[in-house]
Amino acid sequence: MATQGQFITCKAAVAWEANKPLVIEDVQVAPPQAGEVRVKILFTALCHTDAYTWSGKDPEGLFPCILGHEAAGIVESVGEGVTEVQPGDHVIPCYQAECRECKSCKSGKTNLCGKVRAATGVGIMMNDRKTRFSIKGKPIYHFMGTSTFSQYTVVHDVSVAKIDPTAPLEKVCLLGCGVPTGLGAVWNTAKVEAGSIVAIFGLGTIGLAVAEGAKAAGASRIIGIDIDRKKFDRAKDFGVTEFVNPKEHDKPIQQLLMDLTDGGVDYSFECIGNVSVMRAALECCHKGWGTSVIVGVAASGQEISTRPFQLVTGRVWKGTAFGGFKSRSQVPLLVDKYLKEVGSSMHACMLSAFET
Amino acid sequence: MATQGQFITCKAAVAWEANKPLVIEDVQVAPPQAGEVRVKILFTALCHTDAYTWSGKDPEGLFPCILGHEAAGIVESVGEGVTEVQPGDHVIPCYQAECRECKSCKSGKTNLCGKVRAATGVGIMMNDRKTRFSIKGKPIYHFMGTSTFSQYTVVHDVSVAKIDPTAPLEKVCLLGCGVPTGLGAVWNTAKVEAGSIVAIFGLGTIGLAVAEGAKAAGASRIIGIDIDRKKFDRAKDFGVTEFVNPKEHDKPIQQLLMDLTDGGVDYSFECIGNVSVMRAALECCHKGWGTSVIVGVAASGQEISTRPFQLVTGRVWKGTAFGGFKSRSQVPLLVDKYLKEVGSSMHACMLSAFET
Repeated sequence: MATQGQFITCKAAVAWEANKPLVIEDVQVAPPQAGEVRVKILFTALCHTDAYTWSGKDPEGLFPCILGHEAAGIVESVGEGVTEVQPGDHVIPCYQAECRECKSCKSGKTNLCGKVRAATGVGIMMNDRKTRFSIKGKPIYHFMGTSTFSQYTVVHDVSVAKIDPTAPLEKVCLLGCGVPTGLGAVWNTAKVEAGSIVAIFGLGTIGLAVAEGAKAAGASRIIGIDIDRKKFDRAKDFGVTEFVNPKEHDKPIQQLLMDLTDGGVDYSFECIGNVSVMRAALECCHKGWGTSVIVGVAASGQEISTRPFQLVTGRVWKGTAFGGFKSRSQVPLLVDKYLKEVGSSMHACMLSAFET
Repeated sequence: MATQGQFITCKAAVAWEANKPLVIEDVQVAPPQAGEVRVKILFTALCHTDAYTWSGKDPEGLFPCILGHEAAGIVESVGEGVTEVQPGDHVIPCYQAECRECKSCKSGKTNLCGKVRAATGVGIMMNDRKTRFSIKGKPIYHFMGTSTFSQYTVVHDVSVAKIDPTAPLEKVCLLGCGVPTGLGAVWNTAKVEAGSIVAIFGLGTIGLAVAEGAKAAGASRIIGIDIDRKKFDRAKDFGVTEFVNPKEHDKPIQQLLMDLTDGGVDYSFECIGNVSVMRAALECCHKGWGTSVIVGVAASGQEISTRPFQLVTGRVWKGTAFGGFKSRSQVPLLVDKYLKEVGSSMHACMLSAFET
């Protein structure tokens, strides 16, 4: 390829400072070094986590940076030693890496590979601990190891999933974050069984993906909780069977849900990032077995709390990141599943994305 | 039997008021009504929960009452409809009932039978919502549905486990609370696997039973944490392999344990009832899979807290009551296990009890 080994100048949306409008700039993207992959990003979506870091509330946020982590594209070139993808491969960048070698990857118990975290957490690449983005020589930080708000980006090879080239990238880019997070919260983290009663706090994209996962798992009741009643209509398409607006009731929401469900729900999911709601989500669970999964990301420094009695009497408090999916291994399988089920319910999840 | 159907006058240690010495009194024990069993208590132990309610700090505590819930005895007589035990059977009273009929018992997911809780929680029997104890006509409340600090007590038939009559009651009475709680926390609630690293906060009876359970499960390292170094010698007999005294270190205990274990323990158990320690026990767990089980009972009104990030990154927060054992079904099996293993490690758990 003509561009291989060369700097590429392309457009990117740069966050120069927290809480200031992104600026479309001409950015120089360095060629991939050993263990790196340069990807032409064709479609990217916007996730709340981008907005959170952009807002300046994320204490780990570094500026200037290129945000974006939910995308799809095509490999442009690869660095030395990269064997699992090659130029032309269709890929989804994965903010959660999977090296298959570290203690976490080998544990069989978690998807939280730690191999490149020390670099991606501070906006750089592991090989030389520098960035691959620059504007007139000034380095621009990476974000979440993905930086998909750019026409070209460089990622670690452990952070890229090769997918079926027939998949529509404008749809499957959503399998880079939100949809797997919701589905996996249900299937991998909570392991919802058929017949279960499920409560979902927050009917945004994650909440809808949780609903879809719960429906696929055969939940008998899927109760959506949101302060915006308008969300219920769309939520029905994703499997939500009942709607509760806490603002329409005087009782604490956990008490209301316990009353509605003969003692509490089997599984609850917090899909907002609000620590008070996380408490309610735990406390609406049935004594003895109810399991609550935190999916939303709370603001820095905030804490959850409850009476320990809630746990001693059998409730379980968990959380999930990327739905527990192993990114490189399982994102391609989710793409395959999507392709098989186009037109079915999973299709409903795939709303839309922005073309870069 | 001569006493059947009659009031029995016997000795009992009565708690007339919170925080005042128990008084040995002559108590009248009414005959068992339908679904009730009168038991001659031969041995009882003292558990921290007795002391907690006695102290007056338990908001559900009722006085005057007869405390005690870790005991063994022989059935003296049974009320109408009682079929599973008969006079002469050796039994362990079970503060956690098992009716085998309620939603919880049928769920297959919990041991927290709720059948008689509404009565035992307020110190009375379910049949007529009165007590079976009185002194000169004045009713004395039951405690935890067991009240074993009496030579005779009356319990619901769902709250009594029939055991092998050859078992030494002065030993197996401990299978009424502390030992199953610790063993079950490991085997049923945490499900510790061979090779795991385990941390135990608090090396009292429960902590020692946790250690014994972890050793039996094949844990590779069992780290005991206590502010009293003298407890380590005894703890070694129960399987504890390393000892940490938080007072001997400047670092927060969770950080110290993470450093000692390459990122955190696989399982931790809080066996004290201190909410700050519960937080440390969660936070010393390994990212991705570490599971913390709350075994200790905190004082009323106290709350646990942590950053939700602890859960989102894969730690699991649980609790246990009676170690998740189904009382009537499984206490007899624990007695059998004890009889088979006398002289082996389980024997070590069986310290001593008080003769009534």
